[in-house]
Parts: sequence; C-alpha cells; structure tokens
Amino acid sequence: MKINSIFSNFTPKDTKFIPLLKETASILVEASILLEMLYTSGKRHKELCQQIKAEEIKGDKVTGRISKALNETFITPFDREDIHALADEMDNAIDCINRSAQKVLLYSPENIPKSTVKLAGIIRKAAECLQDAVNELPKLKKNDQQIRKCCKEIKKLEEAADDVYEDGIMILFKEEKSIIEVIKLKEMIQELEMSVNKINSIGKLLKTIIVKYA
Amino acid sequence: MKINSIFSNFTPKDTKFIPLLKETASILVEASILLEMLYTSGKRHKELCQQIKAEEIKGDKVTGRISKALNETFITPFDREDIHALADEMDNAIDCINRSAQKVLLYSPENIPKSTVKLAGIIRKAAECLQDAVNELPKLKKNDQQIRKCCKEIKKLEEAADDVYEDGIMILFKEEKSIIEVIKLKEMIQELEMSVNKINSIGKLLKTIIVKYA
Amino acid sequence: MKINSIFSNFTPKDTKFIPLLKETASILVEASILLEMLYTSGKRHKELCQQIKAEEIKGDKVTGRISKALNETFITPFDREDIHALADEMDNAIDCINRSAQKVLLYSPENIPKSTVKLAGIIRKAAECLQDAVNELPKLKKNDQQIRKCCKEIKKLEEAADDVYEDGIMILFKEEKSIIEVIKLKEMIQELEMSVNKINSIGKLLKTIIVKYA
Repeated sequence: MKINSIFSNFTPKDTKFIPLLKETASILVEASILLEMLYTSGKRHKELCQQIKAEEIKGDKVTGRISKALNETFITPFDREDIHALADEMDNAIDCINRSAQKVLLYSPENIPKSTVKLAGIIRKAAECLQDAVNELPKLKKNDQQIRKCCKEIKKLEEAADDVYEDGIMILFKEEKSIIEVIKLKEMIQELEMSVNKINSIGKLLKTIIVKYA
Repeated sequence: MKINSIFSNFTPKDTKFIPLLKETASILVEASILLEMLYTSGKRHKELCQQIKAEEIKGDKVTGRISKALNETFITPFDREDIHALADEMDNAIDCINRSAQKVLLYSPENIPKSTVKLAGIIRKAAECLQDAVNELPKLKKNDQQIRKCCKEIKKLEEAADDVYEDGIMILFKEEKSIIEVIKLKEMIQELEMSVNKINSIGKLLKTIIVKYA
Repeated sequence: MKINSIFSNFTPKDTKFIPLLKETASILVEASILLEMLYTSGKRHKELCQQIKAEEIKGDKVTGRISKALNETFITPFDREDIHALADEMDNAIDCINRSAQKVLLYSPENIPKSTVKLAGIIRKAAECLQDAVNELPKLKKNDQQIRKCCKEIKKLEEAADDVYEDGIMILFKEEKSIIEVIKLKEMIQELEMSVNKINSIGKLLKTIIVKYA
C-alpha cells in the first residue's frame, strides 16, 4: 500500500494527473456558477445554456485527456482506476448540471420557483467545496483532515438541498394551477437535487479513496 | 486469494466488520417494516415517516463507523473496498426506502393504491432475505450455498415486484381520474419498485463478492 | 500487468468467457432490432414485447452462466471483476431496452412520435457498434484502435440521441394536447434516451478496461 499509493503518482515523476483533476473540478465550479446565474438572472437563458454546454464539452475533453494520460503512463492498475473513477464522477456531475440547465431552455417554464434558485446556489457551494477537496489531494498522505472536512460540508449541503427540494415540491403541488407547469417544474427541481447528489457522490468517492491511501 | 480473503478479516482479530454490516442490514429491515406499516395502516403517517427518517440517519452513522473502522484497521485495500461497497449499497437501499416513505407525506395522495401496499410488502420480504444473506457472511468460505439461495429469492421478489409495478401503473392510467393523482402515484409506485431494485443490487453485489472469495 | 491481463484469460486455456460475452452482446443487438421494429411497425406490439422480454431473460441467463463460469475458473480476482462488470452492464442495457419496449404495452400511447422511432434506430446502431467492440476483445493487446473507434462511434450516437431527445420533448410540450399523453410519451422518450446512455456506459467501461490491459 505504501509503494502503490495514489500519492506516489503525484510525485514529480507523474505530476500530470493532479492538474487534470483540478481542471475538471474547476470546470465543475464554472458550470455551477453559470447555472446559478441562469436560475437567478431571468435573462440571457440561451447564452448561459450555451456556456454551460461549452463547459460540459470541456469536461468531456479533459476526461478524455485523463484517460489518454493514464494509458500512456506506467502506474499500477489500482491507482488508474481511482483517478479514472474520480474524473468520471466529476464528469457525471457536470453532465447533470448541464441537464439541469438545458431543462430551462427545453421546458421554458412560465416562472422560476424560489426552490430552484436556492438549489442552484447549493450546487455552486457544493462544487466549490469539492474543488477545495481536490486541491488538497497532493497533501493526502500528510493530512486528510481537510479533505474529510470538505466532504462533510458537501454532505451538509446535500441535506440542506433535501429540505429545499421537499418544500419546493410541496409548494408546487399546492400552489401551481397548471398541470403542465407542475410536470415541468417537478422535473427541474428533481434534476437540480440530483446534481447536488452527484457532487455528494464524488465526496463519498473521495472518502473511499482516503480509506485506501491515507 | 487465500491470504487476502474477506474471510480472513472476519477471523477473531478483525471481528468488527461483520457486526457493523449486520447492524446495517437490521436497519434496512427495520426501515422496511416501518414502510410496510406506513402503506398498510393509513394513519400515523407523520410518526412513521419520522421513524423511517431516524433509521436512515442511523444507517448513515453506521456507514460512517464502517468507514472509520476500515481506516483504522490494517487490512488490504481490496477487502476494504468490498466492505465499503456493501455498506454503501445497503445505505443506498435505506435511502430509497426513506424516499418512498417521505413521498407519502410530501405528496399526500388521496388514496393508497393496492399496488403500493403489495410493493411495500415485497420490499420488507427482500430486506429480510438480504439480512439472512449478510448473517451468513462469516460462513462464506465453508458454504456459499445459503447466500446464493437468499440472492436467488431476492431476485424472485424483484421479478414479482415488476409485475405488481406493471399492473399498478396500468390500473392507475385506466382508473385514476385526477391527473395530479396520476403524477403523484406513478412516482410513488416507481420509487417503491426502485427500492426493490436497490435491494436486488445488493444481492448482485454479494454474488460478485462470492465470486471472488468463496 | 502482463501476467494478470484480460488477454491471458482469453488464451486457449480459458476460452469460455469471450463466447459468453459475445453471446450477451448479440442478445443486446437482437433486443435492439426488435425494439426498432416495435417502434416502427405500429402492430404486433404484444408479440414483439414478448420477444424482447424473452431476450431479456436470455440475457439474465447468460449473465448467470458467466458468474458461474467465473466461479469455477481459476483466474485472478481483478479480471473476474472486469468480466463481471462487462456482463453486468450489458445486462443493464438489455433491461433498459426491455423497459423501453414494455412501456409501449404498459402505456398504450395514442400515437408513436417520430422522436421515439429515431431513438430506437440509434439504440440499434449503438448496440451493433458495441457488438463490434466486444468481438474485438480477443485482439485487445495487439490492437485496441478498433475498440476505441467503436466506443467513439457509440459516443457520437449518444450525442445524436441527445438532440433527438431534446427535439422530441420540446415538440411534445408544444403540440400534444392531452396531458396524460404528455406524461406517457415524455417517460417513453426518456427511457429510450436512457437506453442509449446505458450502451454508452458500456463503451466507457470498455475504455477503462483498455486503459488497464492494452
């Protein structure tokens, strides 16, 4: 375990993975900032959705570069898998944020409920926490407390999102008169909540990685 | 494979994981019993939902203790992962049961269709089968037949749930006059069916673990 | 990594896994051909759904045989897992195709929108690409370019499916007058799109396997 640790791959000889994982995390943050703008601004929807889609494509490309780099670098299979899984799950979260965004364009709901704005804010905060955790990866062996703290914070945000989700759905069924709007907004609220869950899944994955390498 | 088996971690020196996995399985069973009561009783909804939520929180805590224990125990990375995955998937099933329960409160449907009652019963039975399988884990190397039998039974229950789900949805679209009720009940039936699927996923995972260690 | 490669398990001594994986891939293709017929023909719905269900059961059985064979063959745990994961994800895709089919019977929508027909066609093409990739597995070590090419093609098909999905949903909300039809067709379009995603997930898994063994 000492020889074959994720840390040893991040020593001078193999410094390329940390920057690539950091790049993916920063795309996730960027997409989440744009998503929050989309849900708060009430305008420039098309432009913001295009920018989020552009981030999603960037995310795909970085994930591709990570795969390629893993393929060309001699490291043991085990670590490859963890880097791959981490890149993959960040990519999934970016995809989910993209879907949450595209639904605004796709469904053009008549109004944007408060719950969706709150959820978009939670997603942005969770993405930033996750970025903090990814930035701590090189120090994993010396100190895993910081990463644990970030994962805990993400878990708290996910719980807060649960409450916002519940309130949002309950208000929707009580107050929305148009059934078509109920259908559209219910799915948007659910997709946003799912985005928080996806970021929390990355947090869980980080905790599993810590279990193995710290 | 002999040296590095899950069984060796369950010998006197590392006896803590089996009790923790058993505890998670019993939380799953407890949550499923409460869920069945929720769908059959027609009253005390709030109280039952709170009790299920309490089980879900207990589940989170035990999973946390498993992570912590894995972190403090010297065992090989491979086995850690299996224990982690097992705890994680049981936690997912508990979460899904909790969501199935909370939807009763969240949506307050006008009536509880028979299909949901049947599905809740199947979930409870599947959870009990799974508990039986988890209780057999210490004997894995001597005899994996019992675990295989439990997994098979869970698979059968999942197939039965499929039929109940189909009938439930078909009846819903044919007989329910209120579209809002269709929306609510369709999602409740789907979430219940998903809970059965999640328990079946744990069964599949157990079979993968058997493949490696038996 | 040389000793413990997936390739070494496919040498004369352990030739059983490749045929079983190929069999699973051909069931996936068969199910997707029937699905396309179901969405294009407009008749024989019940018969086609039964045939697809029969493929799904066949898929379950082959996956079971793969598990059993893995259990009886001495190969290292690592490779077992990859074969297991590959079989499992193909099984998931077949399940999803089956669900996409059964919804035609279950929901009996008044009409079959063009988007669903297009999606069924994309699923069939993606399944065929995947089969091509699986057929290339024995040559993995000599040449992984062909598998990479298939995975890339599947990714493209998944992107095309995204566009069809978006158009389909948008048209549905704009033009469909019956809300019940909106509910039914939205879910059918989403399930079809999910089937493409599941096939793309197998493509992603293949790329991860390539990363390890090529």
